[in-house]
Amino acid sequence: MSHRKNILTGDRPTGRLHLGHYVGSLAARVKLQDQYRQFVMLADLQALTDHAHEPQKIRESIREVMLDYLAVGIDPKKTTIFIQSLVPALPELTMYFLNLITWNRLKHNPTVKLEIQQKGFGEEVPAGFMVYPASQAADIAAFKAHVVPVGDDQLPMIELCCEIVRKFNRLYKTDVLIEPEIYTSQVARLPGIDGKAKMSKSLNNAIYLSDTADEVMKKVKSMYTDPNHLRVEDPGKVEGNPVFTYLDAFAPDKAKVEEMKAHYQRGGLGDSVVKKYLLEVLQAFLEPIRARRTEFAKDSKHVMDVVMQGTHVAREFAHGTLLEVRKAMGIDYV
Amino acid sequence: MSHRKNILTGDRPTGRLHLGHYVGSLAARVKLQDQYRQFVMLADLQALTDHAHEPQKIRESIREVMLDYLAVGIDPKKTTIFIQSLVPALPELTMYFLNLITWNRLKHNPTVKLEIQQKGFGEEVPAGFMVYPASQAADIAAFKAHVVPVGDDQLPMIELCCEIVRKFNRLYKTDVLIEPEIYTSQVARLPGIDGKAKMSKSLNNAIYLSDTADEVMKKVKSMYTDPNHLRVEDPGKVEGNPVFTYLDAFAPDKAKVEEMKAHYQRGGLGDSVVKKYLLEVLQAFLEPIRARRTEFAKDSKHVMDVVMQGTHVAREFAHGTLLEVRKAMGIDYV
Repeated sequence: MSHRKNILTGDRPTGRLHLGHYVGSLAARVKLQDQYRQFVMLADLQALTDHAHEPQKIRESIREVMLDYLAVGIDPKKTTIFIQSLVPALPELTMYFLNLITWNRLKHNPTVKLEIQQKGFGEEVPAGFMVYPASQAADIAAFKAHVVPVGDDQLPMIELCCEIVRKFNRLYKTDVLIEPEIYTSQVARLPGIDGKAKMSKSLNNAIYLSDTADEVMKKVKSMYTDPNHLRVEDPGKVEGNPVFTYLDAFAPDKAKVEEMKAHYQRGGLGDSVVKKYLLEVLQAFLEPIRARRTEFAKDSKHVMDVVMQGTHVAREFAHGTLLEVRKAMGIDYV
Repeated sequence: MSHRKNILTGDRPTGRLHLGHYVGSLAARVKLQDQYRQFVMLADLQALTDHAHEPQKIRESIREVMLDYLAVGIDPKKTTIFIQSLVPALPELTMYFLNLITWNRLKHNPTVKLEIQQKGFGEEVPAGFMVYPASQAADIAAFKAHVVPVGDDQLPMIELCCEIVRKFNRLYKTDVLIEPEIYTSQVARLPGIDGKAKMSKSLNNAIYLSDTADEVMKKVKSMYTDPNHLRVEDPGKVEGNPVFTYLDAFAPDKAKVEEMKAHYQRGGLGDSVVKKYLLEVLQAFLEPIRARRTEFAKDSKHVMDVVMQGTHVAREFAHGTLLEVRKAMGIDYV
């Protein structure tokens, strides 16, 4: 048994990953895999809660996201990457957890309420979507995650998980389940190329890890900057200017970025010059990722083998927790 | 493969079974096992939705109900008896089904609304209880049940199942799931010994299949009859008089029962005489059941072996359906 603490993270497989994912979670995972026993979940069950009509997208994204993971350096020797729906302990534990919270408690989950608005479900919220916080709590509990890195918006989810775990342990007089620590990511969210607060596939403002050099060039050229920076000699703003936010995130030469910012602010530095530098920086960052991705993509069978091996490990682990859970509940019949 | 149609029935294991269960379902199952491929489910997952605080009762009831099944003649060679929570395909299929119905649809299920009132949940309805109709739909679909015998009060459940199955098949362009026929039991509900409409453990008005001869005697003696039948010579009522309802259900000599009814109605037949005859009838009915039950109870390991063998068969069957479901959805990744 490992003495490392467990960490659970993952993604809904509903499309390829982009720079926003890299900054928000992938970079951290590459580091955390040396310090934690890391589980990374391809959350297809969760994706289905609002994509029941397009499972094909989920199927395709499993492979695409796997390629993204491997390309950025998530190492299957250090990290267990697995497919959520192939771990039967998770839906079963979800059923037990649903009995420990009230309908009202789910209904008033702030994250879910906000997402319902954003997704425009109106009165047609799928029941699966309403209960997904219980499913997420089951994921965390099944993998005995000490640490769950999430954004601020996901805090109510972790709080619900803690509440359920406490209730389970108290009700069944046990300590088999672990309350996760809340660990919110320090890294700011990466804005979209259109300057909107969040890079996101649905907003169509993302640079993907798998974009070709040509696509990246076109996207950088089209990037939103300071709309009042009309002539080169005008002073420009760097706050809320995604070109500089990206430079902060990806340029290795911090001094040069500071110098450019000052120059831009006092006037005399054109957007095209800044974008040219950003393009260099991004191509240098993305080129090796793209190359590894292309290499891995040549052997789809290997990629699926990797995720199935991880899934096997995850199944065993979660099944172990489930046996403890059933024993604590006294429904270990044999 | 069997050419028989499948039938799914079962009980929530929350106590021993009584004469009401016999009349309402057990007698039919003993017959149906020769005509159908019959699955009988010990619905512990469903029981937990409103018994999360007392899993011990469920654990004990698994054995008790198994003994009741075997004692009345449900034959494991003909019927697959299994434990719901040990069939992992069921919670997984429940998750997929929850994505195909709206929260509102669940909220307005008439059976659930009534049960919420009866159970006095108020605002504290467990989320698991609210979603159990989807879980029940998954049970029916997983076992490809053509026929699901239910009482009238459960009709909305079967209708929901049909709705989900139709939606699944339409959405994923498939016919792997089968819409069950609605088959409502002909047999009237057995009243309690107190004359209340329903024999039920919670009303404490039940004669159990496992009651001793002495317990049965005491219960029959204490039975409610026509409250206006004060003297032997008074005319009495047979409608709503549970003593006669029980005779209708259990006395083999129908002519004698008709004769007694006529006598009772015109006056001159005392309650004690009728009860004495009912006691004879019930003891004759229950004695062989009790004897077989005692015999089976001597070998608890055998009883658990029987249910585990059935569970193994049920797991395989439901897993087969799940593979078809995943294939239809296009999430059969390997």
